[in-house]
Amino acid sequence: MERLYDRGLEAGRVDAVEGIEADQLHEECGVFGIFRHSNAAELTYFGLVALQHRGQEAAGIATVDGTKMYRHRGLGLLSDVFSGGQLKELIGDSAIGHVRYSTAGSNTVENAQPLTFTTHQGNLAIAHNGNLVNAHKLRVDLEKTGSLFQSTSDTEVLAHLISRGEHDSLLENIEDSLKVIRGGFALVFLSNHQLIAARDPNGLRPLALGKLGDSYVVASESCAFETVGAAFIRDVKPGEIVVIDEKGVQSTMFVKQVKRALCTFEHIYFARPDSDIDGYNVHAIRKQLGRILAEQHSAPGDIVIGVPDSSISAAAGYAEKSGIPFEMGLVKNKYIARTFIQPSQEMRDSGVRLKLNAVRTVVDGKRVILIDDSIVRGTTSRRIVQLLRDAGATEVHVRISSPPYRHPCHYGIDTSSKGQLIAATHSLDEIRQEIDADSLEYLTVPELMTAFGYGRGEDYPFCNACFSGQYPTETSGGKWEIETLQEAGV
Amino acid sequence: MERLYDRGLEAGRVDAVEGIEADQLHEECGVFGIFRHSNAAELTYFGLVALQHRGQEAAGIATVDGTKMYRHRGLGLLSDVFSGGQLKELIGDSAIGHVRYSTAGSNTVENAQPLTFTTHQGNLAIAHNGNLVNAHKLRVDLEKTGSLFQSTSDTEVLAHLISRGEHDSLLENIEDSLKVIRGGFALVFLSNHQLIAARDPNGLRPLALGKLGDSYVVASESCAFETVGAAFIRDVKPGEIVVIDEKGVQSTMFVKQVKRALCTFEHIYFARPDSDIDGYNVHAIRKQLGRILAEQHSAPGDIVIGVPDSSISAAAGYAEKSGIPFEMGLVKNKYIARTFIQPSQEMRDSGVRLKLNAVRTVVDGKRVILIDDSIVRGTTSRRIVQLLRDAGATEVHVRISSPPYRHPCHYGIDTSSKGQLIAATHSLDEIRQEIDADSLEYLTVPELMTAFGYGRGEDYPFCNACFSGQYPTETSGGKWEIETLQEAGV
Amino acid sequence: MERLYDRGLEAGRVDAVEGIEADQLHEECGVFGIFRHSNAAELTYFGLVALQHRGQEAAGIATVDGTKMYRHRGLGLLSDVFSGGQLKELIGDSAIGHVRYSTAGSNTVENAQPLTFTTHQGNLAIAHNGNLVNAHKLRVDLEKTGSLFQSTSDTEVLAHLISRGEHDSLLENIEDSLKVIRGGFALVFLSNHQLIAARDPNGLRPLALGKLGDSYVVASESCAFETVGAAFIRDVKPGEIVVIDEKGVQSTMFVKQVKRALCTFEHIYFARPDSDIDGYNVHAIRKQLGRILAEQHSAPGDIVIGVPDSSISAAAGYAEKSGIPFEMGLVKNKYIARTFIQPSQEMRDSGVRLKLNAVRTVVDGKRVILIDDSIVRGTTSRRIVQLLRDAGATEVHVRISSPPYRHPCHYGIDTSSKGQLIAATHSLDEIRQEIDADSLEYLTVPELMTAFGYGRGEDYPFCNACFSGQYPTETSGGKWEIETLQEAGV
Amino acid sequence: MERLYDRGLEAGRVDAVEGIEADQLHEECGVFGIFRHSNAAELTYFGLVALQHRGQEAAGIATVDGTKMYRHRGLGLLSDVFSGGQLKELIGDSAIGHVRYSTAGSNTVENAQPLTFTTHQGNLAIAHNGNLVNAHKLRVDLEKTGSLFQSTSDTEVLAHLISRGEHDSLLENIEDSLKVIRGGFALVFLSNHQLIAARDPNGLRPLALGKLGDSYVVASESCAFETVGAAFIRDVKPGEIVVIDEKGVQSTMFVKQVKRALCTFEHIYFARPDSDIDGYNVHAIRKQLGRILAEQHSAPGDIVIGVPDSSISAAAGYAEKSGIPFEMGLVKNKYIARTFIQPSQEMRDSGVRLKLNAVRTVVDGKRVILIDDSIVRGTTSRRIVQLLRDAGATEVHVRISSPPYRHPCHYGIDTSSKGQLIAATHSLDEIRQEIDADSLEYLTVPELMTAFGYGRGEDYPFCNACFSGQYPTETSGGKWEIETLQEAGV
Repeated sequence: MERLYDRGLEAGRVDAVEGIEADQLHEECGVFGIFRHSNAAELTYFGLVALQHRGQEAAGIATVDGTKMYRHRGLGLLSDVFSGGQLKELIGDSAIGHVRYSTAGSNTVENAQPLTFTTHQGNLAIAHNGNLVNAHKLRVDLEKTGSLFQSTSDTEVLAHLISRGEHDSLLENIEDSLKVIRGGFALVFLSNHQLIAARDPNGLRPLALGKLGDSYVVASESCAFETVGAAFIRDVKPGEIVVIDEKGVQSTMFVKQVKRALCTFEHIYFARPDSDIDGYNVHAIRKQLGRILAEQHSAPGDIVIGVPDSSISAAAGYAEKSGIPFEMGLVKNKYIARTFIQPSQEMRDSGVRLKLNAVRTVVDGKRVILIDDSIVRGTTSRRIVQLLRDAGATEVHVRISSPPYRHPCHYGIDTSSKGQLIAATHSLDEIRQEIDADSLEYLTVPELMTAFGYGRGEDYPFCNACFSGQYPTETSGGKWEIETLQEAGV
Repeated sequence: MERLYDRGLEAGRVDAVEGIEADQLHEECGVFGIFRHSNAAELTYFGLVALQHRGQEAAGIATVDGTKMYRHRGLGLLSDVFSGGQLKELIGDSAIGHVRYSTAGSNTVENAQPLTFTTHQGNLAIAHNGNLVNAHKLRVDLEKTGSLFQSTSDTEVLAHLISRGEHDSLLENIEDSLKVIRGGFALVFLSNHQLIAARDPNGLRPLALGKLGDSYVVASESCAFETVGAAFIRDVKPGEIVVIDEKGVQSTMFVKQVKRALCTFEHIYFARPDSDIDGYNVHAIRKQLGRILAEQHSAPGDIVIGVPDSSISAAAGYAEKSGIPFEMGLVKNKYIARTFIQPSQEMRDSGVRLKLNAVRTVVDGKRVILIDDSIVRGTTSRRIVQLLRDAGATEVHVRISSPPYRHPCHYGIDTSSKGQLIAATHSLDEIRQEIDADSLEYLTVPELMTAFGYGRGEDYPFCNACFSGQYPTETSGGKWEIETLQEAGV
Repeated sequence: MERLYDRGLEAGRVDAVEGIEADQLHEECGVFGIFRHSNAAELTYFGLVALQHRGQEAAGIATVDGTKMYRHRGLGLLSDVFSGGQLKELIGDSAIGHVRYSTAGSNTVENAQPLTFTTHQGNLAIAHNGNLVNAHKLRVDLEKTGSLFQSTSDTEVLAHLISRGEHDSLLENIEDSLKVIRGGFALVFLSNHQLIAARDPNGLRPLALGKLGDSYVVASESCAFETVGAAFIRDVKPGEIVVIDEKGVQSTMFVKQVKRALCTFEHIYFARPDSDIDGYNVHAIRKQLGRILAEQHSAPGDIVIGVPDSSISAAAGYAEKSGIPFEMGLVKNKYIARTFIQPSQEMRDSGVRLKLNAVRTVVDGKRVILIDDSIVRGTTSRRIVQLLRDAGATEVHVRISSPPYRHPCHYGIDTSSKGQLIAATHSLDEIRQEIDADSLEYLTVPELMTAFGYGRGEDYPFCNACFSGQYPTETSGGKWEIETLQEAGV
Repeated sequence: MERLYDRGLEAGRVDAVEGIEADQLHEECGVFGIFRHSNAAELTYFGLVALQHRGQEAAGIATVDGTKMYRHRGLGLLSDVFSGGQLKELIGDSAIGHVRYSTAGSNTVENAQPLTFTTHQGNLAIAHNGNLVNAHKLRVDLEKTGSLFQSTSDTEVLAHLISRGEHDSLLENIEDSLKVIRGGFALVFLSNHQLIAARDPNGLRPLALGKLGDSYVVASESCAFETVGAAFIRDVKPGEIVVIDEKGVQSTMFVKQVKRALCTFEHIYFARPDSDIDGYNVHAIRKQLGRILAEQHSAPGDIVIGVPDSSISAAAGYAEKSGIPFEMGLVKNKYIARTFIQPSQEMRDSGVRLKLNAVRTVVDGKRVILIDDSIVRGTTSRRIVQLLRDAGATEVHVRISSPPYRHPCHYGIDTSSKGQLIAATHSLDEIRQEIDADSLEYLTVPELMTAFGYGRGEDYPFCNACFSGQYPTETSGGKWEIETLQEAGV
């Protein structure tokens, strides 16, 4: 979800006390929906638990009983937000839910989703994963003509567009509005009698359709289906609107032309290993990336170590292909996520390390091949290499299971601190020196694509913009609309 | 603050989980504002503490530092809402604040005030005491033309009107909007460089202007000035806009014609005894009402007892005039307000009484003259009379320091349950029987008016609509706009 | 409840983080008990609500079902401690409860009561109002011989004494222990099959017996009986143990000689006006004290004002006797108790006053007779006089409805800061100057005693030690045991 | 920590409302201590974060500044207990801390550690990991002679023993008390001037000594040293008391004879993989157990899957040895630990599974070798096998990296529900049928011992009582003291 900035800085400060940090973009969200099931709210809750990794900042569920709409949302993990019996009060047989990415203190209840509002066509709730690149421009226009915004979320822009729609049918107003917005989005809408799912024309953000008994479900990732006992049917198609109502499932395309540009970073890092997205299992892709690394970027080592948790699959692939033993040389403290007390710089300097421990018995005297999924600013990698050396590693060879991350994402992954993307400003060898590795190699984009089954030179139906700088969405007047925000000095 | 009902019923249910009880209107609110003082937020907090009796449901404060706006609001008493250091983060040298009336569970954060939003003219915060009688109609029109409402508060209607204003000046847009709204309102606005106060053309709701050092302050009641050490200057006039900025105080009238119709119920019951409103001290008026009761509606008794806390002044006046001793025959448990655990009906039947105790030693064997300020449904009065009889009172003569309350208030006091106004449907003797009193007498409207210095037959500049049914505001097409809501079955 | 200090200072600091303030003694507590009633826990809760004024620091209830004991206790008001359904889990048909005096941050859960423990004779719970003057010495002895203390409460000393008892009967061990302790105490014990109430041989702390249907109840003040619908039977006698079990009520004396020394300060200030203690109604005594003041210490004034809430009865008595009008010239902010945010000294200096407002309209141009119940350090009185002068009072004549408070209480009322008792070190005229009154007069002890029906020179069965310095309890070796604590420099 | 039961049942119910579940034993705890470091409290906090897996029920830290002791403890995770700035108030340069195992609702603040108390020799704090088998008998004796217990923790028995000690030196009283207690224990004590660590004569529970700059530290597991940047020195020896004071480290043995009987289950399941305990790295042992399984208990499979998280190391070892690919076929939801909302049985039946997801893409059509560390009741294993079959596994061969768990642990691991240890009552084939595996094999005790370097028939210095039934501690009169508790019907 985008934060709107030029005026947003001020708007943001309005709620400064309630916790917005205007200088911090956030990544991703997760959405879930279910239509006509006697346990709609509970199943949405459990589906969101499976998607919690996509957003830990805020959570919410809206339900409808055919006439009235009910909602509860709040800041924090699902377990915090729904700790007091609120689920029981969310009556109704259809529901949508949302989880939002979390950095401590960076959000407000006003921005939590689902958004709910009333229209002439009745109640409407919206949950959104992604980022609208033209939200700022639309917002300025809407405000100029009297629309009153109460959050800094780009999703509210969509709500105002729908609210201004002139059709008698809510669905038609939604369709019209979807044609106006640009960027990456997976959307679920809940009205009195319909559950509606829509995916942007490039398919930048994932969205899947499933079935649980007689009820249809939608979710950002298929792992949520497994959790609630639903069967996966298919991915929602780029540019598609899926309407679920008492007549069943109907599908229409809200744009004539689609150009598939699926986000590879979902598979590389963001999604859960047990999810299948657009036909590719996440763990399987990661393991394959590890095997490709072993083939194309071998390193002289005694043991293979993956940075937990996201690089364990790639490390296992590397070990399998190379025949070098896979070891647990780094252990992650699983309680650290909840610890808001942080060591001071002085304590860090003196060696306090909360998140990861290196295992001396495993590492001591060994040449380590360290597998990680990506390098953002380089500071974490540097710390991990140091940790391994302190534990006695004689050499540390870093292998990254993706190409260098050089360009900001405009479609829902937080890479706001562009100046801080180390690969944007440093050569391979400079990065190696910066992280103090004995050697460093990345995958190339074509190597990455082979894991998805595409050969060199093929027209990849994927978005690799963060690696290549080639963005799939249209620009207006030759410029990114989003860049006006950047020009505004944000 | 009005709740909007025909569609509000649905809108209300959207947030049912967050606590709206659609069937319960609420009374009154309190507002406070201060311009250019180094302790703006703290002083607003203390000013609101003095006004806490006007609203215990929710509280909030917004501040501005000339450029940016900050706000914190929440549900509950001020001490609950500002329990965690939030005041310190409300930087800026100007502030407005709001307290809202409380019935447990009847509100949402979305409805808490001040409302804050951004306009083309910069930040704006609004705090409102009162009720807009044409809010429903305006809301329907606004929604039809694309405005998106996110609360059920009537104050949001005003925000949308201002947001749609076409002047370059925020003040002009506010002025235009004030001409459109109808009903009772005391409003304070805070923009980047101005504190604006406005009072409805009838003066239905109180609002006063004061000065603290070089800084101007506004408040619903003068008791807040006393608390923060400010000097009372004057009441804001009906139909007046007071603009406070770096040039000082400027006053304009936003309507050409005003008809004073000050609410007498503020003095009778609602305001704090130490406040002066429109030139009348509340305690003094109440004591005088007690004296008039003694003169005009004497009763044969041994002791005079007032229902605590609001009828103590009137009882003292009755005792003084009649020469009958004033005694503390009823004691209120001051901790009960915070006790959400209530005795079951079975326990009530067996005699458990939390709120009031009768003092047997005082009452036993005595003929009691019981002074109360009003009778709404009669159930409380009946319970108190019973309490006194159980404690040994041989006779209970009830004297009410106001006329029979027969008509709903449309201007900010909750009397939604019109069918339950006992005086609307019962004769004096029926009420006496209902509450089981030995005798019952009320003041008449002319008697009430003599306490304010007006003689019989004069044109009173007061609203006594709740007693007389004569409402001071215009109707549209011969009908109360508010009645459309009633017709809608609310 | 006493805090134990010489070593307690250290023990106290053990739990410093949990909130003990070692330098602050506390006043009073309230106890309640009920035997064999189907709503034992609820009725105890409601009884404690009526006694909440006696202790706002902590609260707890213990119940027994004949075999097992259940308890919940916590810090804060009853409404805070029992906010989450805990009452329902307190099963059993007999219960005792406790409220403790509160100064923010001055207590720990460990010190909250009832204390519960197991003995060879089964479960035992204790709730205590008062102060044991020999607790320190007993504790030292107990610790030396291996007893392990886990709180700094003097009540735990009693628990250890009972625990070391060598009788097979719990009641006998309690009786033996009561003979050892000295000071003021009202105690309720709950065992598997008995509710036991005991009062110190001087009757320093109040305790009353009542009946609710077939069930017996005990409470610190009779107002709790009124609240739960129980009938008052009689006060527990000084030196008496009342044992309530299935056989009914049995009474024995645990000392041979008693010397009644009832605490007059309960009537003057501490108790609720609707309570009857040892045959005297609190409101009636206070009003009579006001009348005596008017007769013996008349002042030239236009209006009589009482400091709310405790001096309203006395002010009404003064007004009645003198014929001078009783007015509400001071208004107390009833929400202030919950407000932990305090104005800074700078803000106080500039006039911010949260607790009391003077009512200018009432006071301006008047000679005020101000009635208060006592002067402790004088700072509050000085502030109130100033408040009245600021509001326009031309003269302020202070009349105190008790004698000068000169000596510390060792029996349960916090007067630790003896050096700060202004009457201990200042002459009447010095006090008058200090509080800036035009005149100041107190009652004498004989005048005080006439309100209770005793003539000059009679042998008063009351403790007036705080006025006279004549303490009713024995001293050991000519010295107060409590004084060893003082010698220890506490 | 043991719960005391025969009378504990009653004592437990005293605090039933506060959350004791009398029928549920708990496993393990973690302890940490540091002497003379300027960041004592913070480092203890971070050390405990590393040990959080050993106890999630409650946490606490006590500090001392040479004179005064400070403590904070509470229920829940460290992040919950220390969420409000409490660390800053724990002043002093030496500290001990404790984490306790958690089952929701099964604990009280009274039982949380460190326990703190005052003795004639000054302040003392105790933190304890383990279980005292003669605590019940000692408690009965102590109670009979007047000791007053306020918790149901066996650690309080030790406190009373020390409190009754007759030496002038606290250390000597501790030594004497350690000779009296029996069972498994790792203890840290903090007094005004000493940090004392002690380990039971069998070394049943782990305890290690480290150094951070000039300061000594002790911890249950070495992973805590890595986290705070300390260097591991050595394990505390069975039967050893380590005294750390200003003179440095001194060591004495409190028993003449020790018989090493280190708990193998720490390595198999409980400890963190990055810890070294008694010379063995936990991950390395687990991986070796996997290799031994592959050698001795091979299975016909296509992929190897470990149950996350504890069996990943063993699965990697199995895969490495067997050459069969290691795959991530089960994914654990890492947010589930905090989710108190559980699916109903109906929802479970319809397929809702919160904790583990099987990955269909990985598993479908495959013969799975499933590695787990142990089987307790069998229900979890059965569910996992079913999950894999539902995801398309054609065969599931279960291999357990330890021998059958047949006997209760009396030394600190919760296996109270002995009747529910499936291996105690079922044959291998019956268990296989019960969990619906195609094949099932365990390690034997001698195979287990080879991972630690011991050959068949050697005198193992390990406790394998849970597998073999041969308990290392003495019995009294030929009977387990603990069994009296069982006889008592607990």
